[in-house]
Amino acid sequence: MNFEYSEKIKKLQQKLTAFFEEHILPVEEEVNTFLYNPDNRWKPWPGMEDLKAKAKAAGLWNLFLPKSYGALSPGLTNLEYAPLAEIMGRILWSSEIFNCSAPDTGNMEVLAKYGSPEHQKQWLEPLMNGEIRSAFLMTEPQVASSDATNIETSIIREGDEYVINGTKWWSSGGMNPDCKIAIVMGKTDPDAPRHQQQSMVLVPMDTPGLKIIRPLSVFGFYDSPEGHAEIVLDNVRVPKENLILGEGRGFEIAQGRLGPGRIHHCMRLIGMAQRSLELMSKRAAERIAFGKTFKDYSSIRQEIAQSQCDIEQARLLTLSAADKMDKLGNKASKDLIAMIKIVAPNMALKVIDRAMQIHGGKGVGPDTPLAHFFVAARMLRLADGPDEVHMYQLGKSVIKKYAE
Amino acid sequence: MNFEYSEKIKKLQQKLTAFFEEHILPVEEEVNTFLYNPDNRWKPWPGMEDLKAKAKAAGLWNLFLPKSYGALSPGLTNLEYAPLAEIMGRILWSSEIFNCSAPDTGNMEVLAKYGSPEHQKQWLEPLMNGEIRSAFLMTEPQVASSDATNIETSIIREGDEYVINGTKWWSSGGMNPDCKIAIVMGKTDPDAPRHQQQSMVLVPMDTPGLKIIRPLSVFGFYDSPEGHAEIVLDNVRVPKENLILGEGRGFEIAQGRLGPGRIHHCMRLIGMAQRSLELMSKRAAERIAFGKTFKDYSSIRQEIAQSQCDIEQARLLTLSAADKMDKLGNKASKDLIAMIKIVAPNMALKVIDRAMQIHGGKGVGPDTPLAHFFVAARMLRLADGPDEVHMYQLGKSVIKKYAE
Amino acid sequence: MNFEYSEKIKKLQQKLTAFFEEHILPVEEEVNTFLYNPDNRWKPWPGMEDLKAKAKAAGLWNLFLPKSYGALSPGLTNLEYAPLAEIMGRILWSSEIFNCSAPDTGNMEVLAKYGSPEHQKQWLEPLMNGEIRSAFLMTEPQVASSDATNIETSIIREGDEYVINGTKWWSSGGMNPDCKIAIVMGKTDPDAPRHQQQSMVLVPMDTPGLKIIRPLSVFGFYDSPEGHAEIVLDNVRVPKENLILGEGRGFEIAQGRLGPGRIHHCMRLIGMAQRSLELMSKRAAERIAFGKTFKDYSSIRQEIAQSQCDIEQARLLTLSAADKMDKLGNKASKDLIAMIKIVAPNMALKVIDRAMQIHGGKGVGPDTPLAHFFVAARMLRLADGPDEVHMYQLGKSVIKKYAE
Amino acid sequence: MNFEYSEKIKKLQQKLTAFFEEHILPVEEEVNTFLYNPDNRWKPWPGMEDLKAKAKAAGLWNLFLPKSYGALSPGLTNLEYAPLAEIMGRILWSSEIFNCSAPDTGNMEVLAKYGSPEHQKQWLEPLMNGEIRSAFLMTEPQVASSDATNIETSIIREGDEYVINGTKWWSSGGMNPDCKIAIVMGKTDPDAPRHQQQSMVLVPMDTPGLKIIRPLSVFGFYDSPEGHAEIVLDNVRVPKENLILGEGRGFEIAQGRLGPGRIHHCMRLIGMAQRSLELMSKRAAERIAFGKTFKDYSSIRQEIAQSQCDIEQARLLTLSAADKMDKLGNKASKDLIAMIKIVAPNMALKVIDRAMQIHGGKGVGPDTPLAHFFVAARMLRLADGPDEVHMYQLGKSVIKKYAE
Repeated sequence: MNFEYSEKIKKLQQKLTAFFEEHILPVEEEVNTFLYNPDNRWKPWPGMEDLKAKAKAAGLWNLFLPKSYGALSPGLTNLEYAPLAEIMGRILWSSEIFNCSAPDTGNMEVLAKYGSPEHQKQWLEPLMNGEIRSAFLMTEPQVASSDATNIETSIIREGDEYVINGTKWWSSGGMNPDCKIAIVMGKTDPDAPRHQQQSMVLVPMDTPGLKIIRPLSVFGFYDSPEGHAEIVLDNVRVPKENLILGEGRGFEIAQGRLGPGRIHHCMRLIGMAQRSLELMSKRAAERIAFGKTFKDYSSIRQEIAQSQCDIEQARLLTLSAADKMDKLGNKASKDLIAMIKIVAPNMALKVIDRAMQIHGGKGVGPDTPLAHFFVAARMLRLADGPDEVHMYQLGKSVIKKYAE
Repeated sequence: MNFEYSEKIKKLQQKLTAFFEEHILPVEEEVNTFLYNPDNRWKPWPGMEDLKAKAKAAGLWNLFLPKSYGALSPGLTNLEYAPLAEIMGRILWSSEIFNCSAPDTGNMEVLAKYGSPEHQKQWLEPLMNGEIRSAFLMTEPQVASSDATNIETSIIREGDEYVINGTKWWSSGGMNPDCKIAIVMGKTDPDAPRHQQQSMVLVPMDTPGLKIIRPLSVFGFYDSPEGHAEIVLDNVRVPKENLILGEGRGFEIAQGRLGPGRIHHCMRLIGMAQRSLELMSKRAAERIAFGKTFKDYSSIRQEIAQSQCDIEQARLLTLSAADKMDKLGNKASKDLIAMIKIVAPNMALKVIDRAMQIHGGKGVGPDTPLAHFFVAARMLRLADGPDEVHMYQLGKSVIKKYAE
Repeated sequence: MNFEYSEKIKKLQQKLTAFFEEHILPVEEEVNTFLYNPDNRWKPWPGMEDLKAKAKAAGLWNLFLPKSYGALSPGLTNLEYAPLAEIMGRILWSSEIFNCSAPDTGNMEVLAKYGSPEHQKQWLEPLMNGEIRSAFLMTEPQVASSDATNIETSIIREGDEYVINGTKWWSSGGMNPDCKIAIVMGKTDPDAPRHQQQSMVLVPMDTPGLKIIRPLSVFGFYDSPEGHAEIVLDNVRVPKENLILGEGRGFEIAQGRLGPGRIHHCMRLIGMAQRSLELMSKRAAERIAFGKTFKDYSSIRQEIAQSQCDIEQARLLTLSAADKMDKLGNKASKDLIAMIKIVAPNMALKVIDRAMQIHGGKGVGPDTPLAHFFVAARMLRLADGPDEVHMYQLGKSVIKKYAE
Repeated sequence: MNFEYSEKIKKLQQKLTAFFEEHILPVEEEVNTFLYNPDNRWKPWPGMEDLKAKAKAAGLWNLFLPKSYGALSPGLTNLEYAPLAEIMGRILWSSEIFNCSAPDTGNMEVLAKYGSPEHQKQWLEPLMNGEIRSAFLMTEPQVASSDATNIETSIIREGDEYVINGTKWWSSGGMNPDCKIAIVMGKTDPDAPRHQQQSMVLVPMDTPGLKIIRPLSVFGFYDSPEGHAEIVLDNVRVPKENLILGEGRGFEIAQGRLGPGRIHHCMRLIGMAQRSLELMSKRAAERIAFGKTFKDYSSIRQEIAQSQCDIEQARLLTLSAADKMDKLGNKASKDLIAMIKIVAPNMALKVIDRAMQIHGGKGVGPDTPLAHFFVAARMLRLADGPDEVHMYQLGKSVIKKYAE
């Protein structure tokens, strides 16, 4: 047991931080202004490709893909990647610069792990190069999709094709003009045993019958250029080779996909919370009301002290989950992954909310990242499974452990 | 002591509810779609004037203005108005239909109470008729404006004019094309005793030197058509008659303005929470996951039961504050007003957040009023004084009461 | 709707407060010292009978029994009694002085409402006169007694007698030497429909076979002289006339008994919280640390302000439940009664805990009533139904109301 | 960074757990019954000396004293001791068996670090051997002792003696008949700079003038045989050699004493919480209400899942503090120590409270350790500095870190 970052991690942290200071922080305001302007909706910020090239050149590329993937991976473990994801979390749109943004990361893992050589050539390669973006079509408006067995989209074999019908929403990234490929979850066999009804299939975004109905706002944000799409699949036809892994394997793929994805989200949340803490500390040191600087109010010190406690605990929990995943695999770590998925978004919401309050009106407006952080964190109490589902399963598992 | 609504209130509730059912609910989705479309930003929904005329015709007009104002008032007490404001709170943009929306209501009270006959003729009359809208320019970006003595905008007498310089933001309503008049708070005498430095002055929105810098978003929402404006006052000149009540009386006016305004906000928050509870109850009765309808999960029943407890308590507290204001006046009720201002937004946030969670992705998106309710409630932990300021003063007052 | 206490209530509050100041506060410390001394365990404080006589003489006797009971009642409604129960709550052992202490009050209501003339003559009369005390034997160690259908004690008719077998615990009052009669809940017919299996029977405490096993401590407190008894009923035989109301009516009696009892508990909890708030206000005004009086720390003001908000809301909710019970009866008020039962203990725990913390070591020790208040409030999250059961039923009822 | 216990720790955990299973668990109920019986107050349980001998023989003795103390220490680091303290925390009276109980551990550290050879010979040796017990006299009833500069007890040099006058309370361990020596904090020079006024002096418990006034209860517990004493020091005279380290060094000693002590308390709290979680899991698997086993209620699973999350985070935070103390020393770790001191008691209270609630009446009574755990945890929100003081200092330190 050892709670110090390794020298390797420390160096990567420094390198990534330096990249932020040199290339990202100077344009932060410019990018925000661009992205929040409705006239630019669904357009990527023009400087993004240049930044991506710089990151690639610096060796800060695809860091998310664990060592266990061999040649494709830049060679980090989950434990090593986690503190870097934390740094990326400090700016919502920065992960893409390093080709480390959701849902692409999860999709790349799926393709690297379960994709056929053809899938990998056609889709994984351009994704790994950052040339295209992707979407993951799982959630449906008509059913409680947190119970994946509820999902109703049909994927029916007809000759050499699969025919897909259904409605999906909250398809993050789906509005991006560079989004070229979607992984779609649906039922190939509604009569199979509960966990073998579902399959996943690759659907190019330009396939006839795939119609983007509308972008969904989250609170008032549209998260351009990725967006969150509502998509109708109306007799969409793809070659039978587009099926991933095999019929009835959808659940299995979903399970494999979600573990690392969750930990990345959590580390970014810790980065959001950490930056919020720093912002509120600075604010507390500056502002004066009723004759006293904010930092001299005991209640404000309490908010800041409590935030520090909350962040550090969640950080350790997430790192320990990463360590366990590296050592024992995703399945053996499922309780710990559930724990971080429950803990991190709620922790971040509390910290960000305190930071907003200390900032007054500025805190809920466009001049700090706080309001957008809050919304991102709030969404993560639902995305990849709502708190309630994780608690339901974790609670069951804990009871089983101690009551048998 | 009697906890039943009077017959008079019950009838008004029925009348207002009937108006909602007949005229407002049928267009709710249409109006939302219009208002959330960035192409319509700062344009009122075209049907609004027609609805206002209907409300006026139905005698549901200016209900907010207490009986104590005599002929101007439709004759309700605060206690009688409160349950009506609750109903209006169920739809964010509905108060305007009844000429009961902030900041106009507060501005009208200021003009009715402290305005000269000329002020009343020129500005109060069209406001009471719903012909124009108004803004209240208080908060400043550079200082902690919750301590009103911090406010720095200068109002300097030069000959027969006042010259105003400063920057204001979070000027709600300021983006509305129908907004014609602003009440501006600033310092006429920085050397006077702490609470006599400030004055309030009427500034027509088209006065040269008054420049709208930008609209501020709140968690991504722009709240069109009213908006929240950042405004620079650059050598703005108004006739000396535009001063309200007298130099150094700004603080006194602010105090008188905020009591009723706070109670209106709180009653609307209770309406938001109540509607959220109803929505989550309906959702709980419909959705199924893991083989059970949501309503049969004990944790979901707890969320709903707790919400009912939270709402009912806050409602009673707000009504009791209204009753005390009616009987003993705003000043004698200041502790109770502080209490509702602390309680209602926090209560609403908790209830709305539970409702969002039970709705899954739908809850944070555009298809329910929940996300916007949440943002409105969150803003009210800051607007009209942040929680912390109210607790600081209330705590002091309670200690004094029991420790002397 | 009217939130002011009536003149009648105000006068009673003054009278009761005066009685406290003259007769109770001067002996508070003496009584506490007596009761906490293990040498005095299960002995009533010798001065108690004298105080009871004084209360009777002052007309402050049996105030709890609602007007609706006619001649037996001193004529108060629930709404009128509630603020008096609040005052009694300020000192844990004071209710008995006014013959208003649990479980006697509930038992008297049962006897007044459902008892035969013989029951009333033999047991109700001396209870109403404060000559004897009583116990209520419901909870059992072996089953989750919050679901009353789980209760297993058997009450079997044999000839002209009922034979009772079972184990009960948390029989409050059972250790008191003056406790002469118990009402026992048990099953007369385990094969009847779920809510008709249970009956209630009167069992004199000196009946052969009724054995007190031990007193139960609550967080180290024994609550002498009443105590909480574990009692075995081993072939206890009583005449068949001791059955109350009829076989299978136990559930019905339990329902009738619990409404008013819950409201009394809640009002006393509000009294505990109110006294705690006053104590912490005084403490805040006195103590100094790090160069500042406690009352000047913003965090301490927040604790006090929040406590004031919490108390006032719970008070209003409880009073509104009392009002509804008076007007529409216990059954129509069941949701409101559930609400106060959920709200009041949790509110009191929060307020008392803050008061303890501000008192430092003194707060958890014997020199303030705070620690004992805390324990009393904690117990009331379980007694008369745990929070979870009330929320389960209230949640169901709310969903039904809004989703049908 | 590595989150797995070392092999050395794992072996020690197994050894200690085996000792518990063989020697302690079988007598747990017997010891509790003995200690809770008021007739045995201030008498140690007779079997204790035998258990201590067994622990010594097993090499499970004085484990708390860090490696850095050289020959005196059994050779564990803080990081290695922490998981063992967690196991001891599972039974409140078990630490003494391993000579690892407060306040002796802190007193031994003081003597080992700052004591003269004579102090060590006379007092440290018998303490290390478990032959005597000790007390630490710091807190005073008249002042907010969390601000140690408030402490008023005077220690005045007269010739070759110090004369001590003052009143102390919450002197834990002071009631124990085996308690032979006290370390007393007081002022040698009230006119010195703020942090140089205080000194510490050794006072044998049988010194004339040292009078035990009374034991203090915590909630209703007396914590026999150690107890919490109120003690008057009335012209107590000790030889000048009894002064530790030197006049004015009291603050410095207090600082050095508290770091490790806090971490031990926290690890024991984690043990209490862990045991509570296990108890509630077992209860959830057994009990049935309203037709369902507790474990199938989603709300109960949430309580258990959340508890698991809370415990694991606090455990990691405490272990990381221990690791930092080992590597960089107590002073460099002060923020982390403050963090665990804030986090662990509050975490434990939440978990224990949930466990009590799930146990119903049993949970607050004498048949589980839960109520006593709760009280122990509650006391630790005050002992060794209340939450508020730690947050005040931690908040200041965090702001300084990020706002400079």
